[in-house]
Amino acid sequence: MKLGIIFGGKSFEHEISIISAIVMKKVLKAELIYIFCDYNREFYLIPTKKINSKRFSSGEYKKYKKLTLKNGGFFAKNIIGEKKIDFDIALNLSHGADGEDGKFSSLLEFFEIPFVGPRVEASSISYNKLFTKMYAKEFGVKTLDYKTLNKGSSRNIELEYPVIIKPTRLGSSIGISIVKKKEELDYALDVAFEFDTQVIIEPFVRDVKEYNLSGCKTDKYEFSIVEEPKKDEFLDFDKKYLDFSRTLRVNEADLSEEMKEKLKETFKKLYEPLFSGSLIRCDFFILDNEIYINEINPIPGSMANYLFSDFDKVLSSLTNFLPTCTQVLPQYKYINSIQVAKGKNGKFHTK
Amino acid sequence: MKLGIIFGGKSFEHEISIISAIVMKKVLKAELIYIFCDYNREFYLIPTKKINSKRFSSGEYKKYKKLTLKNGGFFAKNIIGEKKIDFDIALNLSHGADGEDGKFSSLLEFFEIPFVGPRVEASSISYNKLFTKMYAKEFGVKTLDYKTLNKGSSRNIELEYPVIIKPTRLGSSIGISIVKKKEELDYALDVAFEFDTQVIIEPFVRDVKEYNLSGCKTDKYEFSIVEEPKKDEFLDFDKKYLDFSRTLRVNEADLSEEMKEKLKETFKKLYEPLFSGSLIRCDFFILDNEIYINEINPIPGSMANYLFSDFDKVLSSLTNFLPTCTQVLPQYKYINSIQVAKGKNGKFHTK
Repeated sequence: MKLGIIFGGKSFEHEISIISAIVMKKVLKAELIYIFCDYNREFYLIPTKKINSKRFSSGEYKKYKKLTLKNGGFFAKNIIGEKKIDFDIALNLSHGADGEDGKFSSLLEFFEIPFVGPRVEASSISYNKLFTKMYAKEFGVKTLDYKTLNKGSSRNIELEYPVIIKPTRLGSSIGISIVKKKEELDYALDVAFEFDTQVIIEPFVRDVKEYNLSGCKTDKYEFSIVEEPKKDEFLDFDKKYLDFSRTLRVNEADLSEEMKEKLKETFKKLYEPLFSGSLIRCDFFILDNEIYINEINPIPGSMANYLFSDFDKVLSSLTNFLPTCTQVLPQYKYINSIQVAKGKNGKFHTK
Repeated sequence: MKLGIIFGGKSFEHEISIISAIVMKKVLKAELIYIFCDYNREFYLIPTKKINSKRFSSGEYKKYKKLTLKNGGFFAKNIIGEKKIDFDIALNLSHGADGEDGKFSSLLEFFEIPFVGPRVEASSISYNKLFTKMYAKEFGVKTLDYKTLNKGSSRNIELEYPVIIKPTRLGSSIGISIVKKKEELDYALDVAFEFDTQVIIEPFVRDVKEYNLSGCKTDKYEFSIVEEPKKDEFLDFDKKYLDFSRTLRVNEADLSEEMKEKLKETFKKLYEPLFSGSLIRCDFFILDNEIYINEINPIPGSMANYLFSDFDKVLSSLTNFLPTCTQVLPQYKYINSIQVAKGKNGKFHTK
């Protein structure tokens, strides 16, 4: 199978996407075709053996073939016209804006390119932390309490400190601050509003236990091991960034079988049908033996490959279980019937 | 100002979009540039004076210039290469799939074409009736009770009849049935599942009062009059279709000023910030003096022009208040720092 890796994008997580893309070379057996989206949202075909991080930061990638998106795929110009880039399935591997906010999903769906990754709705729900909470509550999954605040609104709000402040719509810990007292609030809000027009404010629970579980649904659910990620206060961008280049297996979290089973049941409540076609990572909290969803990552860093015993097998299996779109056949029923009615009118009412 | 009307799309509401597009000629003073998306998702530039419904149903549109989407706009080939289609702002006028489900918004945002219309998140929330309910509840707006059912799930469900069954993700009354007794349920579900993999089931409230209010936010809220749409049991596709070609003003609903004010306050709760940049129509129910949101139409048929006393003024004002995207500047901070670290490593650890 030929897998088209779509990565990059105009996003604060552009660099993380490059790292994830490089990691795929190490962990996937399929033939990989690399399609890079630069900060200008131009697509380039990067030869697989030329993939390394410096190629992008130096701008060298610009010497490779520029691609155009059209119905059915990505196309490169050649002497006789243009040629479609040949791959069977795309893997959306762009984190953050463009990749996870629904834009890449829309492009791929619109141009009818089959792909692994969240669909538009799944992207909107998981990219927006407020929508994730709405969605989780709807399906009976607990989330931490929260308030939202819009840019420009009064900051005169009642909070019980410490709180954690996050831009509503970013991943990878960018723009996130822990605020321990009122005096620190303004600065933290300024930081978060650099990245989004809305922030979400949650109680900061010290020493909360965090557990990550990845998975997807093929003909059955395929789950990773449960990981308890290392952290200081919380994983900041630099640490998460390093995290994303991981390919080594991690040790399973020290949890009872019963609790692991409960995490899987919670994952299932969130997964289907919204996330069909995607391999996601759910980041859970456990507080007083209760499970809370913190975040749903529909395109986890390096696809959370290190959590699976056979990642290659899971991903290639998923490519056989992608959701299909409702069939829409061309029809002009109403316009035609209006035309007919007009014709009749003419016949009966003019001489 | 030159306004680019983007219409059509691969959608059950393709024809309605054509009608809406034709109506714009009658109600807008701006110079209009028509860009048609056919059922194959190919874009064509249709000369404004050639716009009529038959042009599309006959396939004649194919003789006009085919367009390609690239960064900054739509491009047409010419002898020396290609030329960007010249307009200032686009108006997304495609109803249903493609137009209202987030795909067109994504294309326009990704390729950095300023536009009037819902952004990706707004599209996902309003296109999906379940998400609309989640969203409304979150912001303190009442909705009717409901159940959802996925295709293939057991149909052995407890319901209090009559109920109304709707595909979760379609507009314009397509696939909707009123079910008066258990025996009719199966057929109604079959119909709805033709159009979506999930249905939403609500109590059917006979003689419920329905009120439509359109509006948008510029430097202030711009509201239409409140309309009480005519209906039998409910507006079916044919009636709504005819409705969409309206340009005549309608009469204001017979409601107290207090209730009209309440409808506007409810509209505001739903509008901001999610629907910034769009002119939407909220379809409300009033039951026992309480307001319920039934549907949010982020691209109402013919832009609900007939509800405004000066539609042209409202729409052209809105083009000056479009939301902007968070600035993302190219940076390779992390990759560069890794390169530097590797360099140092080399320097210190090799001879």
